[in-house]
Amino acid sequence: MIRYTCVNVASNNTNDNILIINTKHYERSTGVRAVSFFADLPDSNAFKGWQIHYAAGPYDLHLAKQFPEKSFYAQHVDPNGYGAYTGKISMEMLIETGIQGSLINHSEFRVSSESIEMAISKARDLNFNIVVCAENLEEVAKFAETGAKLVAYEPPELIGGNISVSTAKPGIIEKAAAICRKNGSRLIVGAGIKTHIDISTSLNLGASGGLVASGVVLASNPSIAITSLINKELT
Amino acid sequence: MIRYTCVNVASNNTNDNILIINTKHYERSTGVRAVSFFADLPDSNAFKGWQIHYAAGPYDLHLAKQFPEKSFYAQHVDPNGYGAYTGKISMEMLIETGIQGSLINHSEFRVSSESIEMAISKARDLNFNIVVCAENLEEVAKFAETGAKLVAYEPPELIGGNISVSTAKPGIIEKAAAICRKNGSRLIVGAGIKTHIDISTSLNLGASGGLVASGVVLASNPSIAITSLINKELT
Repeated sequence: MIRYTCVNVASNNTNDNILIINTKHYERSTGVRAVSFFADLPDSNAFKGWQIHYAAGPYDLHLAKQFPEKSFYAQHVDPNGYGAYTGKISMEMLIETGIQGSLINHSEFRVSSESIEMAISKARDLNFNIVVCAENLEEVAKFAETGAKLVAYEPPELIGGNISVSTAKPGIIEKAAAICRKNGSRLIVGAGIKTHIDISTSLNLGASGGLVASGVVLASNPSIAITSLINKELT
Repeated sequence: MIRYTCVNVASNNTNDNILIINTKHYERSTGVRAVSFFADLPDSNAFKGWQIHYAAGPYDLHLAKQFPEKSFYAQHVDPNGYGAYTGKISMEMLIETGIQGSLINHSEFRVSSESIEMAISKARDLNFNIVVCAENLEEVAKFAETGAKLVAYEPPELIGGNISVSTAKPGIIEKAAAICRKNGSRLIVGAGIKTHIDISTSLNLGASGGLVASGVVLASNPSIAITSLINKELT
């Protein structure tokens, strides 16, 4: 198998906290408006102790070349390599185009257990940062035990809402973080995260960062929204 | 609903034959090598009486802007619009970025009947060229009756092989073309198509064109392969 080298624009410090912005398929964050949207966002190493990754839609991934100081992730990746596949995106292609990670199994794009296991195995082989989304504690445990380096816990009923996962499910976050630690994984939490308190509560419960979408993308100023999430002083 | 305007780089003559090149996820046709791959291909109106459309992978769709004389299609499209969708591609975004059509339900990316029906309905509303792939005669009939303007018949067992659909299934092509005509649809045929004879046989059986992948993409010279498919004299 060909080995591809990851050139990591985000810090390689594995103690850094992680903020992943899922830019979804909002009108302002994809297609013809994506260039100006991403241009205004902070660089991936803009904040000490944090790595910021932008999980962009499939059409927008080419912007990784235009914005080398921002770390782009995909919103979904397929476990296939190059070849006779229609409508698919491989880790090999992403790595070659400067993209070092991807979400997989988001509640808006669920895939089979077999695909997840193949993707986790391949990501480890290629040193690719796969972030496996889990809807509940059982899935967190399953994916951490399968070898996922990053597991994102997002209860689907809270996605896009105003009640943060850290307010609604603190006990589950604590348990999920412990399970991840035990398996050498790190936990990211998402759903309803809008303020620095939501983030800091999650970190205090043992998580390593947050997965945020509407709280940033639909904010009146997405760049300030990111700064506010990370810097307590600004909230 | 917002109405988007199609700017059709391919001829609007609905009597034209149609050649769709599915560039798939081959190493030479996606990602870092896609620019040079597409640069060498004929423009969409290069041959009188033919429209050529390039169905590119999700990462490569942005090249539609770089090559305005080539008509890009997507390899897959989702029936959602803009909004809170992860890893998805909408017709609205494609149209705004200059892409006027897409395959859907390719045998390498099958989707639910519900998604296909939603996509057909939406494509008619937006004047978007959806090409619904069908694996057998029953599916051709179903999609034509649902209102698909273009139906691509590709028996999966012949995809990527050396036996052309026009050699293996002439009777089915003839029946499928009649069903499409009756419903105001046009039939495209694919699988194993490598020569002008494969194409001309399909046209003689009532089809309106071909869907080709490896026969062009893996050819030693993809541009000559396209010319050969269309111009009998060169084969």
